[in-house]
Amino acid sequence: MSEKYVYKFNEGNAGMKALLGGKGANLAEMVNKGLPVPPGFIITTEVCLKYLEDPKIVDRIWDDVKAAVAGLEKETGKKFNDKDNPLLLSVRSGAPVSMPGMMETILNLGLNDDTLEGLATKSGDRRFALDSYRRFIQMCSSVVDDVDSDKFEHVLTAARKKLGVSFDNEITAEELKNVVAEYKKIYKEATGSEFASDPWVHLRKAIEAVFKSWNIPRAVTYRKINKIADDLGTAVNVQVMAFGNLGDDCGTGVCFTRDPSDGTNELYGEFLINAQGEDVVAGIRTPLKIAKLKEVMPDIYKELYDKTEQLEKSYKEMQDIEFTIEKGKLYILQTRTGKRTAAAAVRIATEMESEGLIDKKTAVGRVSPVQVEQLLHPQVDKNAPKDVVAVGLPASPGAGVGQLIFDATEAEEWTKEGKKVVLARPETCPDDIHGLFAAEAVITSRGGMTSHAAVVARGMGKPAVCGCEEMVIDLAANTLTARGRTFKKGDFVTIDGTSGTILAGEAPLVKATFGDDFKKILVWADEFAKQEVWANADTPEDAARAIEFGAKGIGLCRTEHMFMESGRLPVVQELIVADTLEERKAALDKLKVMQKEDFVGIFKAMKGYPVIIRLLDPPLHEFLPKENSLESEIAELEKKGQGQAKEALYKKKTLDKVRLLHESNPMLGFRGCRLGVVYPEISEMQMYAILEAASELVSKGVKVRPEIMIPLVGTKTEMKFFREMADRIAGDVAKKTGVKLDYLLIGTMIEVPRAALVADELAEYAQFFSFGTNDLTQTAFGYSRDDAEGKFLFNYLEKGFFKENPFSELDRDGVGALMKIAVEKGRGVNKDISIGICGEHGGDPSSVAFCCSIGMNYVSCSPFRIPVARVAAAHAALGVLK
Amino acid sequence: MSEKYVYKFNEGNAGMKALLGGKGANLAEMVNKGLPVPPGFIITTEVCLKYLEDPKIVDRIWDDVKAAVAGLEKETGKKFNDKDNPLLLSVRSGAPVSMPGMMETILNLGLNDDTLEGLATKSGDRRFALDSYRRFIQMCSSVVDDVDSDKFEHVLTAARKKLGVSFDNEITAEELKNVVAEYKKIYKEATGSEFASDPWVHLRKAIEAVFKSWNIPRAVTYRKINKIADDLGTAVNVQVMAFGNLGDDCGTGVCFTRDPSDGTNELYGEFLINAQGEDVVAGIRTPLKIAKLKEVMPDIYKELYDKTEQLEKSYKEMQDIEFTIEKGKLYILQTRTGKRTAAAAVRIATEMESEGLIDKKTAVGRVSPVQVEQLLHPQVDKNAPKDVVAVGLPASPGAGVGQLIFDATEAEEWTKEGKKVVLARPETCPDDIHGLFAAEAVITSRGGMTSHAAVVARGMGKPAVCGCEEMVIDLAANTLTARGRTFKKGDFVTIDGTSGTILAGEAPLVKATFGDDFKKILVWADEFAKQEVWANADTPEDAARAIEFGAKGIGLCRTEHMFMESGRLPVVQELIVADTLEERKAALDKLKVMQKEDFVGIFKAMKGYPVIIRLLDPPLHEFLPKENSLESEIAELEKKGQGQAKEALYKKKTLDKVRLLHESNPMLGFRGCRLGVVYPEISEMQMYAILEAASELVSKGVKVRPEIMIPLVGTKTEMKFFREMADRIAGDVAKKTGVKLDYLLIGTMIEVPRAALVADELAEYAQFFSFGTNDLTQTAFGYSRDDAEGKFLFNYLEKGFFKENPFSELDRDGVGALMKIAVEKGRGVNKDISIGICGEHGGDPSSVAFCCSIGMNYVSCSPFRIPVARVAAAHAALGVLK
Repeated sequence: MSEKYVYKFNEGNAGMKALLGGKGANLAEMVNKGLPVPPGFIITTEVCLKYLEDPKIVDRIWDDVKAAVAGLEKETGKKFNDKDNPLLLSVRSGAPVSMPGMMETILNLGLNDDTLEGLATKSGDRRFALDSYRRFIQMCSSVVDDVDSDKFEHVLTAARKKLGVSFDNEITAEELKNVVAEYKKIYKEATGSEFASDPWVHLRKAIEAVFKSWNIPRAVTYRKINKIADDLGTAVNVQVMAFGNLGDDCGTGVCFTRDPSDGTNELYGEFLINAQGEDVVAGIRTPLKIAKLKEVMPDIYKELYDKTEQLEKSYKEMQDIEFTIEKGKLYILQTRTGKRTAAAAVRIATEMESEGLIDKKTAVGRVSPVQVEQLLHPQVDKNAPKDVVAVGLPASPGAGVGQLIFDATEAEEWTKEGKKVVLARPETCPDDIHGLFAAEAVITSRGGMTSHAAVVARGMGKPAVCGCEEMVIDLAANTLTARGRTFKKGDFVTIDGTSGTILAGEAPLVKATFGDDFKKILVWADEFAKQEVWANADTPEDAARAIEFGAKGIGLCRTEHMFMESGRLPVVQELIVADTLEERKAALDKLKVMQKEDFVGIFKAMKGYPVIIRLLDPPLHEFLPKENSLESEIAELEKKGQGQAKEALYKKKTLDKVRLLHESNPMLGFRGCRLGVVYPEISEMQMYAILEAASELVSKGVKVRPEIMIPLVGTKTEMKFFREMADRIAGDVAKKTGVKLDYLLIGTMIEVPRAALVADELAEYAQFFSFGTNDLTQTAFGYSRDDAEGKFLFNYLEKGFFKENPFSELDRDGVGALMKIAVEKGRGVNKDISIGICGEHGGDPSSVAFCCSIGMNYVSCSPFRIPVARVAAAHAALGVLK
Repeated sequence: MSEKYVYKFNEGNAGMKALLGGKGANLAEMVNKGLPVPPGFIITTEVCLKYLEDPKIVDRIWDDVKAAVAGLEKETGKKFNDKDNPLLLSVRSGAPVSMPGMMETILNLGLNDDTLEGLATKSGDRRFALDSYRRFIQMCSSVVDDVDSDKFEHVLTAARKKLGVSFDNEITAEELKNVVAEYKKIYKEATGSEFASDPWVHLRKAIEAVFKSWNIPRAVTYRKINKIADDLGTAVNVQVMAFGNLGDDCGTGVCFTRDPSDGTNELYGEFLINAQGEDVVAGIRTPLKIAKLKEVMPDIYKELYDKTEQLEKSYKEMQDIEFTIEKGKLYILQTRTGKRTAAAAVRIATEMESEGLIDKKTAVGRVSPVQVEQLLHPQVDKNAPKDVVAVGLPASPGAGVGQLIFDATEAEEWTKEGKKVVLARPETCPDDIHGLFAAEAVITSRGGMTSHAAVVARGMGKPAVCGCEEMVIDLAANTLTARGRTFKKGDFVTIDGTSGTILAGEAPLVKATFGDDFKKILVWADEFAKQEVWANADTPEDAARAIEFGAKGIGLCRTEHMFMESGRLPVVQELIVADTLEERKAALDKLKVMQKEDFVGIFKAMKGYPVIIRLLDPPLHEFLPKENSLESEIAELEKKGQGQAKEALYKKKTLDKVRLLHESNPMLGFRGCRLGVVYPEISEMQMYAILEAASELVSKGVKVRPEIMIPLVGTKTEMKFFREMADRIAGDVAKKTGVKLDYLLIGTMIEVPRAALVADELAEYAQFFSFGTNDLTQTAFGYSRDDAEGKFLFNYLEKGFFKENPFSELDRDGVGALMKIAVEKGRGVNKDISIGICGEHGGDPSSVAFCCSIGMNYVSCSPFRIPVARVAAAHAALGVLK
């Protein structure tokens, strides 16, 4: 701990936020810049931390505090605890990171029965003095001694009633005298002691109260939500009071140097004449627009305008400024970086760059990935009233409004009639895909963040609320019931996928913004980012969208979704039900033709950017009908006497296969490359389809860069097997077509821990790695995501066992450690190996920053998250995001 | 490659096995020791390896071969390719590691139409010479030129028929001449060339044939099975022929210096007068016991006895010796370490130690863990005929005979009547436990190596064959059908759990041996082992057995099996179905009483050794009835009009819970410590039961050392949570009872990859680690064991993707890498942290060796595998096992 505990404002500067807190450092900076700031001093954050270990530290610093108060006395000519010309102080918290309203403040400190008289005389306003005194007693009692604030309010209410007035400022001086007396009684009843008369006692208690307020629950919670470290502590700012309520030549206000809602470059804010800051907040009087100040106090407005300009230029950032006018003199009480909407952030950043105030890097750093996310989806207007129907998982962000529909086909029909619909299902399956396409949003009562509905909705960029278990969907009755209310087909609802909320009726939405300023930010972001952003895209439409959003490649093209399409599923089922290699090959021949078409479409859309195609991954049973539906279909046929008909026999064979393929833990079962090891003909078909499609396009002059990715590899032997297969097929296709392709032929997902641990062995055969962090998180933790999120993960999050859901934000200590091992081992064998990520974390800002920090070449995410990832990658490169 | 390719016998010694092969090195050693060995030379393994790359190497060594042959001519006075006194040679393989019968041999090399005459004259036996010649042609043609051997046999058969005789040795010289002529014709027809007349051509081809035989399929397979490296190569031994078939002063035989079946210290073996080695093998004449040689040729017997004594003393190991007597002269053709049964291995090792021939370390090293395993279980007699019914997974080793029973209760009843039964079920569940207890063995048609039947059987040390899918069990008909045969209730079957085979009828068994010699070996093993062997034991009976087998602690006491017991399951179900904390606590209070009793029993049995008790691990739904059985029970009650009866309501509530607890991947779901985080009251009950039971016993003067183990920990926050819980409860119990316990209070399983990766963080709160390598293997590979073994793992093993099933033998590269990380990180924080393993690998010799190599303190395995692990640990310490 340094030896200096107390800093006068002129001893600090803007760079000392860690020690002096944000507020204190800014006050110091303003004093240094000659701005009109009421004098004061700062007790450092170090003292706070020390205090929280051992409160005795206050004894050690007390002489310094006294000396600093003496300094204020000298500067103002007033004296602390002086009945003629009393010095009054404010005591405020100020953490290194802004935590507005979270910690304690005490105003008017220095008042007692004696100094009250001095204030009354000096201000010439006894009522003001008494009102200040009663405010001080109220604030001090509740903050320092935890006396219930309501008790004081009751006294005020009684006083108003007695006088027959509506507002506190109408209570007379005489009555306020009684109020003060009542307040003191309340204090004594609550604490057992007299309210202290010595202002030094109050000052000490106030300082300690600010220190303690670092750990009050709302502050702790705020830090947790905003990921602020617990070991920063707060500084204490002790400042001479400036009064905006000493008459009509007084006032108080708040202003922003630019409009925080849309970024317009003009002074924006509100003020009140003859008022204290509290009055603005209390909402008793309606504040005036700042432009009005020009009319009322033109000189003051001019001074304020100049000072705010000076502050913005000095900080090179939009400022949020509090000011008070005391008897015709302007005081700046606080300046800080102004909060703003996403749209304003983009406009301010690009305009400040044009104005030459900041450079491009700074401009990019000023737009957070979270703000980018907000810009991309329409959102429910925060200011509108909300009628909550139910809350589920925030499965896909954004907002949508539509009429409730419980059937996918009906959803499609209603849409054709020009209606907007929200599809509500217990859960969705591939058969519902046309309904998902048609709907504005989707809600399900079952399933987690990786359920079919959630994954498809995210892929399509549609809002979705999934696993909303408090909602009961009755498909027979076409109703949705939750919290005692029932909604019918056709009722309007609003889906807020960002928060996981279902609202009744048509809530107003705020539209997505994707203007020129935003495009500028994204282009700049790409200039600074060290990693490319690729997309996860399975269809030509997805691929086109990915390009539009700025993707530099496809990091994951899942082939199973192609298998699921309605025209193909029967062929896939033939393949699976087949008993012999010949039967399988017949089905595969049919599939190959279709797969080639898919690939041709995607390759064309990607205009020569790399396209990583992952071979079939899911367990085969996912392509077959459910056991019980087959059983009842067979029973039906038996009943009709058609038990031996061809159809029935095929269904029976399918049922046998469904039972054979049943798994206790399908996530850890017969899937991924294991399918291709047991049935190499499936992988061979896919490789031929990819390379033939690519070669045919190249021979027509289309640029194509196909890459083959093997899922779920865990051993060198698997990787070797597929490398040899790929080499052989590539040679074969090259011979047949005469086309030489430019590509990294084959790579592997790293999605089981063992793959990371033997990455050096895999790198002998793999030309690229792509981290599948969804599965890697599942296997590293031993969590099945759907089960974990339904059963215990939210309990863990509530208990603080995790700061973040590891499926949303990459777990750096565990999963990240495996990734580091894999990168080191892989690069050790092949220093040029291309490494990326294609798990959902690829679109999460913190995870992107981690991926950048371990030296990945690219991150791949769903098309709709590409702008988020582009900005995150830039922030990581710029050190804004770590 | 060294410059010396060819070694005369007297140029080598026993230490040169890598270069000269085992046989060659032993022949050289014998020559050096003055034993009567027919002279010869050796072509090195290096030449073989070179040859397999480029056959031209033979040109480079040919002069050396010629010189060596010249040396033999000089030594014997005979000449190669000489029609008067021809030198005949044998050409044999000899790898550095014994691969008996796997590679090629050619005898009588040097014969052609000319030298035949010389042999006939010199031996005075034309028939012998012709017979040697026809044998040579036959052997040479099939080995060198791959001519079908059957064709030659047909000629012999025709000759016997023509002469009206039964055996080959009755074929006359005259007829043999025709046979030779026919043989040459066959050769020409098959190869298109004449059978060469130049013996030098034969010698070269024979040497090359031996080299090539290193890579013939049966040799490759043998190496794979016996884990012999593929890059050793074989040497070629060229040796002067000695003939045991030149008259009644000739003979041939094989002997062991001790009885290889039981280890008795006496010369053991067989011989034939006037015969070649082949004749012993062919079984045409019944060989005589070696004792008979004393009568027939007393001098030869004496010489043989002395030489074998000399050899055993020299090698300090039981020898398997081949000898030939040629015209009254004894030749030793080969000596090598004799194969022996497990029982013989133990007796020979301990007796040699008493005789002062070897020390204790060597004695322990002479008994392999696999032999120990054989000693512990009765086995199906290898020599008895086998009538195979079906083959499944070798789920639990050993053999058992009994009558087929398809119902657990019936199994128990039959046993009470004194019958022995084999329980056959599609699969077993906790309800079948009394049947499993009663049965000699268990067989199931479904389920893998970790299925209920498999785990319980291994725990009880009963043989089991599981997942035998070729067998159909019809519970209604009480039949078992496989391979077209049907067996009924009461039919006798024999179960060979070691090989996974089900046999028809009562096969003869060889009993388990656990005599004094074996105990001596185990005691010595403990002296040398650096790791203790603990046991996995869940009941006082298991614990007592563990002590009996030499366990030094319990490494894993699973509490869930206690929950499964019939009296308790309803209480456990009450606990799970409970809606409120109060209801849960009421059920837990009842359970606590029972748990304390369990722990008292185990603590008493363990006599003060540490007992690690793992808190509840499995998903809760495992304790509830199955969904469909509840559904039909409820339907039944509804039908009776009792749908609202108390019973029905409880069943409905249970059904709701079953559905709520359903998981898609239960292995990765709501289980392990996750239960205790969400329902801390369950863990608290268990901790109180453990510590109260221990304290009560200690206060009665019983020594107890309880340790609490938390399953499935993956984060520091979990470990901290349980550590704090344990500290609190330990304090509370200590206060209440006044007893101070001596223990490591709490530790964790390391069974998910993340736990290994953050082991340093866990070690802050855990006092011991125990690797749960079953789950760690599942999560590191991303394999659900049951699914993997049923669907693809055996395909992987067949394809050679794995050398061993990673669930049987620890995967050192992946899982092992995680374990190393955990040990290093854990010891980095707490250098004294106790580390062990309690997965099934703890009883596998190679895995035990690995655990020792990374510095574990103990390995824990099922009681029946303790002796295996004790010997394995000693072998690891002695460097015998790596």
